[in-house]
Amino acid sequence: MSETVRLTQTVQKGGCAAKVAAHELRALLARVKFPPTDPAVRVDGSTFDDAAIVEINDRLALVQTLDFFTPIVDSPRLFGQIAAANALSDVYAMGGLPKTAMAILAYPVAKLDRQVISEVIQGACETLSQAKTSLVGGHSIDDETLKFGLSVTGFVDPRRVWTNAGAQPGDVLILTKPLGTGTLTAGLKKGAWSENEMAEAMDSMSQINALTDLLSDTPGIHAATDVTGFGLAGHGLQLAKESQCGLEFSFSHLPLFCKALTSLTAGHLTKAHRTNAEYVGEEISFNESLSPTQRLMMFDPQTSGGLLLTVDPDRAAAILSRIQKRFPRASAVGRVIPSPAARGSAAARLSVEP
Amino acid sequence: MSETVRLTQTVQKGGCAAKVAAHELRALLARVKFPPTDPAVRVDGSTFDDAAIVEINDRLALVQTLDFFTPIVDSPRLFGQIAAANALSDVYAMGGLPKTAMAILAYPVAKLDRQVISEVIQGACETLSQAKTSLVGGHSIDDETLKFGLSVTGFVDPRRVWTNAGAQPGDVLILTKPLGTGTLTAGLKKGAWSENEMAEAMDSMSQINALTDLLSDTPGIHAATDVTGFGLAGHGLQLAKESQCGLEFSFSHLPLFCKALTSLTAGHLTKAHRTNAEYVGEEISFNESLSPTQRLMMFDPQTSGGLLLTVDPDRAAAILSRIQKRFPRASAVGRVIPSPAARGSAAARLSVEP
Repeated sequence: MSETVRLTQTVQKGGCAAKVAAHELRALLARVKFPPTDPAVRVDGSTFDDAAIVEINDRLALVQTLDFFTPIVDSPRLFGQIAAANALSDVYAMGGLPKTAMAILAYPVAKLDRQVISEVIQGACETLSQAKTSLVGGHSIDDETLKFGLSVTGFVDPRRVWTNAGAQPGDVLILTKPLGTGTLTAGLKKGAWSENEMAEAMDSMSQINALTDLLSDTPGIHAATDVTGFGLAGHGLQLAKESQCGLEFSFSHLPLFCKALTSLTAGHLTKAHRTNAEYVGEEISFNESLSPTQRLMMFDPQTSGGLLLTVDPDRAAAILSRIQKRFPRASAVGRVIPSPAARGSAAARLSVEP
Repeated sequence: MSETVRLTQTVQKGGCAAKVAAHELRALLARVKFPPTDPAVRVDGSTFDDAAIVEINDRLALVQTLDFFTPIVDSPRLFGQIAAANALSDVYAMGGLPKTAMAILAYPVAKLDRQVISEVIQGACETLSQAKTSLVGGHSIDDETLKFGLSVTGFVDPRRVWTNAGAQPGDVLILTKPLGTGTLTAGLKKGAWSENEMAEAMDSMSQINALTDLLSDTPGIHAATDVTGFGLAGHGLQLAKESQCGLEFSFSHLPLFCKALTSLTAGHLTKAHRTNAEYVGEEISFNESLSPTQRLMMFDPQTSGGLLLTVDPDRAAAILSRIQKRFPRASAVGRVIPSPAARGSAAARLSVEP
């Protein structure tokens, strides 16, 4: 039955690494004339934020997001859990609480055992239960390869939305989960690692990014985004641009999964490692002491990665210790600096120190 | 550029015909333990209704639905328009007004010209403009074949929701669009018809099912559903079961696209013609005078098909004439009858008369 199928072997690219590259997306959307946007839409795709915000009244707004991908792991149930955690993440990244989800499912009906698909959906349902989110519908089609994901709607108080545009120079950067799922899952697909060997990354990808409930009464969170397919550098750059600031990372403070650097050194890469580096381009500078492998980690595409928060430096220690109760490997990984323009220089927006 | 690609030739199955068959879906969902549903969720997938209803307060509820598919036509812009009209339809089928949409996009980045994808999105945006719906986000992946669709959220007054559970014996059945898109698009894919020859069906598939604004002050609409991949018989059966009634169709009153019967006679079929017939099984009976081709029309999978309404017989003429201002081929196609159980018989739920 399902045990005989290795899901990662049924697809070319797994997880967020299959995402269309940011530069490609910008190029094709540049030619489109979009419909007029309702004034109630406070945040939409144009700011490259994680989710849309649609105001219903002055106390309630919808947070909406959608994500789906090909299998990133071999176990169907785990794939469903990860896909759900990944889709829910954008709602959490905006400070919202997810409420409803609809399933996006495509699979080869004749080739893939029905039990495999039931297990994928079961895994997603378990994660939705943890997130107190109802599965209210969905759509399924017969397709060459398996894809699964969710469209998610949450609620947020419009006065308490976290966006990627609020970072202030001096803020401390907090990253809630370790990096390295891109290279580790690429190695898994090649058979270099087993799911057991990368259990820490598996657990991390299936953990929901729920912070809203933990931090709802906590002031000092200025901006947030979730770190997924475009990597820490790609999502960091989007946040820096929208906030009109720069970011300085301290490499030694970045939480990394066990074996992640080894896996990069061994050359377990996805196409997204290259396209993410191209997307960030000259906007990142590295301390010369950092090795090529260490630099590559900044572009590693994350699936169900953590949240990147920018927080008031006076409150950073208290906020971090709260977050660590749920995400033990959360770390302070750098700080927000003025934008290169404000500094009167032509320097890069992102810098990575040792 | 885009003119050189015939989109229907890039996929095995087009449009709603690619939908996973109803019996397959039931079988795989039967094994899943779903998360507990929030009491605010008034309608979810379990009733096979068109969209979910999530109550926000006693005057406002969300209507949520999601739909995507492979190209059903060759023109990218037209495909985008049809995909959008099809996805919006479920919101209209519940008596709602769509507000926001998120795009679901998968395509072979290296193989398909970027301009083709821009045109698909442009087509969708034009339809969203007509529906006064904002495009607020989406997700795109690199995939073997093109797929496009939308997740749509609308608003509805919870006291005025149209569901598939309210039909009453004696109601008149109104169908707003002609039937036949399944066989016509199968013929198009084989090169038997050109897009010009089936212009009426093309226009119909790209027309939004907006009736809510037209009928918002009109009493007497008891139930509604939209007719898509499971065909008139499949969606009619779901409505009949949820309403605990039977339906009697008059074949000669069914609006059919020009060439639809010819196309069926010529054998332009999809797999869904068979799976839809299997799904309905013994629950349909045909007058013996109806030909095999005429019977097959009841199972023709519709893409962006019309709405099937059941209305108070005393108001049916007035409602139909209102609908015809926007949908000139809308017709009264039969009536609601008591369920076989109520009639004390083992007869089928659906019957088709000449």
